[in-house]
Amino acid sequence: MKKQIHLNAFTQCSICHHSKGQWKNPRDSSSLGYKDVNYWVDLARTLERGNFDALFLADVHGTYNVYKGSRDAAVRHTVQFPSNDPSLVISAMAYATKFLGFACTYSTSYFAPYQTAKNFSTLDHLTKGRIAWNVVTSYLPDANANFGIGEQMSHDERYERAEEYLDVVYKLWEHSWEEDAAVRDIDNDVHNDPAKVHEINHEGTWFNVPGPHMCEPSLQRTPVLFQAGQSGRGVEFAARHAEAVFALMADLNHCRDSAKKVRAAVEKQGRASEHVKIFPGITPIVAASDEQANDKFEQMKEYSSPEGALALFSGWVGIDLSTVTSDMLLSDTKTEAIQGLLSYFEIVDPNRKWTVEAMGEQISIGSVMPKFIGSPSTIADQMEHWMEESDIDGFNIAPAVQSSGFEEFVDLVVPELRRRGRVPETYQTATLREHYFGAGQSRLPSDHVAHRALPRWKLT
Amino acid sequence: MKKQIHLNAFTQCSICHHSKGQWKNPRDSSSLGYKDVNYWVDLARTLERGNFDALFLADVHGTYNVYKGSRDAAVRHTVQFPSNDPSLVISAMAYATKFLGFACTYSTSYFAPYQTAKNFSTLDHLTKGRIAWNVVTSYLPDANANFGIGEQMSHDERYERAEEYLDVVYKLWEHSWEEDAAVRDIDNDVHNDPAKVHEINHEGTWFNVPGPHMCEPSLQRTPVLFQAGQSGRGVEFAARHAEAVFALMADLNHCRDSAKKVRAAVEKQGRASEHVKIFPGITPIVAASDEQANDKFEQMKEYSSPEGALALFSGWVGIDLSTVTSDMLLSDTKTEAIQGLLSYFEIVDPNRKWTVEAMGEQISIGSVMPKFIGSPSTIADQMEHWMEESDIDGFNIAPAVQSSGFEEFVDLVVPELRRRGRVPETYQTATLREHYFGAGQSRLPSDHVAHRALPRWKLT
Repeated sequence: MKKQIHLNAFTQCSICHHSKGQWKNPRDSSSLGYKDVNYWVDLARTLERGNFDALFLADVHGTYNVYKGSRDAAVRHTVQFPSNDPSLVISAMAYATKFLGFACTYSTSYFAPYQTAKNFSTLDHLTKGRIAWNVVTSYLPDANANFGIGEQMSHDERYERAEEYLDVVYKLWEHSWEEDAAVRDIDNDVHNDPAKVHEINHEGTWFNVPGPHMCEPSLQRTPVLFQAGQSGRGVEFAARHAEAVFALMADLNHCRDSAKKVRAAVEKQGRASEHVKIFPGITPIVAASDEQANDKFEQMKEYSSPEGALALFSGWVGIDLSTVTSDMLLSDTKTEAIQGLLSYFEIVDPNRKWTVEAMGEQISIGSVMPKFIGSPSTIADQMEHWMEESDIDGFNIAPAVQSSGFEEFVDLVVPELRRRGRVPETYQTATLREHYFGAGQSRLPSDHVAHRALPRWKLT
Repeated sequence: MKKQIHLNAFTQCSICHHSKGQWKNPRDSSSLGYKDVNYWVDLARTLERGNFDALFLADVHGTYNVYKGSRDAAVRHTVQFPSNDPSLVISAMAYATKFLGFACTYSTSYFAPYQTAKNFSTLDHLTKGRIAWNVVTSYLPDANANFGIGEQMSHDERYERAEEYLDVVYKLWEHSWEEDAAVRDIDNDVHNDPAKVHEINHEGTWFNVPGPHMCEPSLQRTPVLFQAGQSGRGVEFAARHAEAVFALMADLNHCRDSAKKVRAAVEKQGRASEHVKIFPGITPIVAASDEQANDKFEQMKEYSSPEGALALFSGWVGIDLSTVTSDMLLSDTKTEAIQGLLSYFEIVDPNRKWTVEAMGEQISIGSVMPKFIGSPSTIADQMEHWMEESDIDGFNIAPAVQSSGFEEFVDLVVPELRRRGRVPETYQTATLREHYFGAGQSRLPSDHVAHRALPRWKLT
């Protein structure tokens, strides 16, 4: 039997997510749709029709203001701005679907762990076990200022604090309420047995949280844990905690190497390497024929706003790309960081003359995700090729034009993947963790670190 | 024309909200329902059928542990524990309804104002202008500990901080984005005009928030502001900010006096007194006849858990009521706080021998809200009498048995109120603020303090 290709949708409660300028494309409905509950419900139903495991929602808490030392380009081109909160739209989509999961981004920097635990338990209850948490530690200085975090922590400090943060929420999710604490015993007038609801009494470097957890155990207890960290410390963090890794991979070789590194890092943490699913992000551009798909791509380019893409990218890499002459060859620059960027783009296309202008053009559709362009069978070929040649589990699908790009993928590519036995006709399982790891696997496996985050009552 | 009776539903994402023990009542479905999205959608549809203006959701962030110096009674009797987050279920209900508003409790103590602003803007977008914020400053020491707030602020400090908190969110909601900032100008490739999106640059005692706001203006911009404060400082705070005041009133005289005080306090703040709606909470127990309603009340008593009610009440008033002998007359105690309680219960029933036991019995159904018991016409009579004899605008309806009590109210009492011209047949307006203040009034009126919370760019 062929390995299933797991599909996640990747977007944000903002406008033309990773393809700046497409809000002008008549086929894009995100400009008004992102704030409309019906837009999200329609999208969720579309994805469920295509057997997607989850809708992955990014989030951000500030503006991208590195480019030209100003937020103007980011505001003008809606670079994740405005951006609404992703957690608040999930219950509507959960109500309108039965199987689709929801991966919600939530930052360890801006929310108290006690509340984060309550929120994800609430969502796991409301979705009946279909929630995932994309754990981010956040990095925009602008966002820190808005949350009154005066000095930005170092990258490593952020991860150390995040480690303790997860320790706290694991204690709340996994160890505060015993499985049978909510007895609902009418005869003895006991709804919850106080002896089976425990304080966690966490006292650490960053947090003191007595507990108990506000919520009774949900189907998954701990949400499925997503992580996107790709730095050295980020990979270690993901290897310890993540059950699904979202990765931006320039090409198949890059993907193969990254996946190997992730599996090795996971095993180093004493976990079975298959307990992490790996999903590279791709931007599919699909039409009935390859030629029509290429035409569609050319049309998209007419709507691109490379300046918006450069504003996003400048924020990511922390370099103001407006300071580099737009037609200067990047290979001629002396800046180390620019040389680092160049090595990425040389993977994308080793023969292209890479200038800032060329970079802006490249990333204004699908940012740094590979574009899979062609007929349903061409795209299915590419996806199968990546699955066969690298140790990945599926893809995060981020169409350039939203949400019609999701509909096209579901209507054109998914039937082809089903014909090839890569995507099932219907869902086989109920909770999101089961979708990824099989029937009966609604809870974290025994080798997960959460089981070692023991509160005192379990130690004595 | 008779004054409309505005109706709000009052509950929480927890079990048998203000009527401890009713989870055992076969007609109560909150024990499993509170965590089920379908329960909430069904409730929202029921309320919309009854022309309710809003569903008001309380929230809490810790356990009630004053009674017997322990949380055991609160855990056993589900005293707002477990309690899920209320903001997360709203989009599902908004999707399934068109007119019903949602008042969501959110604490100024535990969430950063920048995020609170983003969350309520998101909800106002998703509900198309049907969101309200019940502003609370929180008081449970246990909750503060869970959020790592070491020392509890004094009551007055909490309000001072809350004043500045509101200053920040007003700036974000009302003054960061100009009305026409989101130009969506395709020809010039400008989605948002950077010159019309402003930093707020708030620098104060408690908060520094540069902004700009993450969200484009929603239909109401600022959510409808609910407040429940009844202390001296609380009344002043409510008078300055609130558009709807939720009050626990022992009887009609108490209600009349409280309403007068609120109106006077509002005028003292330079606001038109009718710019605040006043809603006492009531617990209706309705059946086809008065006799059947009384029978129903007697049946409810069989399911009551007075210990749970005393645990809730001990937490509210900060007195461990288990330390008072249960059959001792409260008039015989020397404690000042107990004498204060007694004065409340003597209003409820001046002839009853008030002991802790009697108190527990009284408050275990509907806590301290007056119970309106009888046939539809008896209850409608009482409601009209309160409307005529005091300057209130409607009621917060909190049935003892949930959610069937809401259905009974909608099916039995609302038709009677409609016959009397007190509740319209259908909604006349779209946004929640319009429901309360009339067509065209989606935004805060000009005399509201939010218009004076000016950021620097408006001052220069």
